[in-house]
Amino acid sequence: MKKAKEKVNAAIVIIGNEILSGRTQDVNVVTISTWLNSLGVKLEEVRVIPDDQKIIVNTINIMKKNFSYIFTTGGIGPTHDDITSKSIAKAFNLTYGFHDKAYALLKKYYGKEKFNSGRQKMAKMPKTASLILNPSSGAPGFFVENVFCLPGVPSILKSMLGGLNNKIKGGKKILSKTITLRTVESEIAKSLEKIQNRYKKVEIGSYPFFKQGKIGVSIVIRSTIEKLIFNCEKDIKNIVKKKNIKIIGYL
Amino acid sequence: MKKAKEKVNAAIVIIGNEILSGRTQDVNVVTISTWLNSLGVKLEEVRVIPDDQKIIVNTINIMKKNFSYIFTTGGIGPTHDDITSKSIAKAFNLTYGFHDKAYALLKKYYGKEKFNSGRQKMAKMPKTASLILNPSSGAPGFFVENVFCLPGVPSILKSMLGGLNNKIKGGKKILSKTITLRTVESEIAKSLEKIQNRYKKVEIGSYPFFKQGKIGVSIVIRSTIEKLIFNCEKDIKNIVKKKNIKIIGYL
Repeated sequence: MKKAKEKVNAAIVIIGNEILSGRTQDVNVVTISTWLNSLGVKLEEVRVIPDDQKIIVNTINIMKKNFSYIFTTGGIGPTHDDITSKSIAKAFNLTYGFHDKAYALLKKYYGKEKFNSGRQKMAKMPKTASLILNPSSGAPGFFVENVFCLPGVPSILKSMLGGLNNKIKGGKKILSKTITLRTVESEIAKSLEKIQNRYKKVEIGSYPFFKQGKIGVSIVIRSTIEKLIFNCEKDIKNIVKKKNIKIIGYL
Repeated sequence: MKKAKEKVNAAIVIIGNEILSGRTQDVNVVTISTWLNSLGVKLEEVRVIPDDQKIIVNTINIMKKNFSYIFTTGGIGPTHDDITSKSIAKAFNLTYGFHDKAYALLKKYYGKEKFNSGRQKMAKMPKTASLILNPSSGAPGFFVENVFCLPGVPSILKSMLGGLNNKIKGGKKILSKTITLRTVESEIAKSLEKIQNRYKKVEIGSYPFFKQGKIGVSIVIRSTIEKLIFNCEKDIKNIVKKKNIKIIGYL
């Protein structure tokens, strides 16, 4: 059996004035990131950029070299502000036009009569792109090399990810444990730092919260190596016990 | 009276493994962007990056040159994974250490006895930084030149923005109108494109939605010039009337 690569990483490029203007709350990062975790791919950067062809082309050209996979969201619909497909063609220096398979698929989906120019536009993309099927609303996404273009509407995007599982070659799965404590960060900061220094291949995050008028801290331990998570967790539990801190959650 | 600058832009740098891992849903972009709109500053990019000093320093050094204002969120707490302050000092080549005013402020806030090493760490930052006061939990943010460092906890971040109003010199206010229609995008795509071509200084966005089993499209018109929004809106209403599309919302 081939050994899984130690590190496979990804980035998301959110293309959308509506996210930048504050009109729309992005929720796709959590969806994509959670899905990537399950495949052993680590999300390492997200950029939100405007609907601007020059900016999209530049961003894609920089990022496709630096990450194993790039996922774009938004801008593949039928209106004038949907310029992702055209921009990706430009970034890869490919011909932009009707994609035969996408055109046939959409024509069948809408029926000849309702297949107007707006809907036809959704079949325009780099002509040699591979399609990402859309089980919830017809119009497909597509990918070129390591750049996967998805729609911005959260429910549709979610429905399309499953079909991509066999296109993504992940590395070792990222495992995680969360210990939630009734304490404040400053109480455990010094001890946590010592533990972090002991485990270089473990990522220990500390996240304070205020919930229903009560404060607490969630300690998140992440690593690809199960044994290290186990040991690190034991060390954290030891300091928690010594300091008489209550564990209020465990996941 | 001095005329407001035509364009003042900003970017947000979210520093946080917890956002990239999908554990935490960011909500600060909407908060900051909405606040910036009210000051006449246009948010033009967001980056989410990991808690990694080299990446933070590189990102800040690139972005501080390209935008009028940079806002960072996260990484200014007491634990080992909070490395924003140190990284900003490095990016600006400034001495990192106890900030006299922040130290005094935190000592007073916690009282001498409870001012432990974790809490003291929150007084460490570029020594010459200016403070951003925190009305909800004591620990201040800070800014150096055009880079403003805020905490990641949404309620605390929100409480600190008001105190910055007089530090930000905005341009012309970005005005917007939203017309919500009971239609699908492909029905209006062609007409909208024509209108967009007529109004180069107006940004017309088209956003489909599915709500309570019903579909619709929100058309968002944004510009700094009120007259153009008014005219563009009139044109959109004309096509809507001609196509017999129902207006279901107006904002």
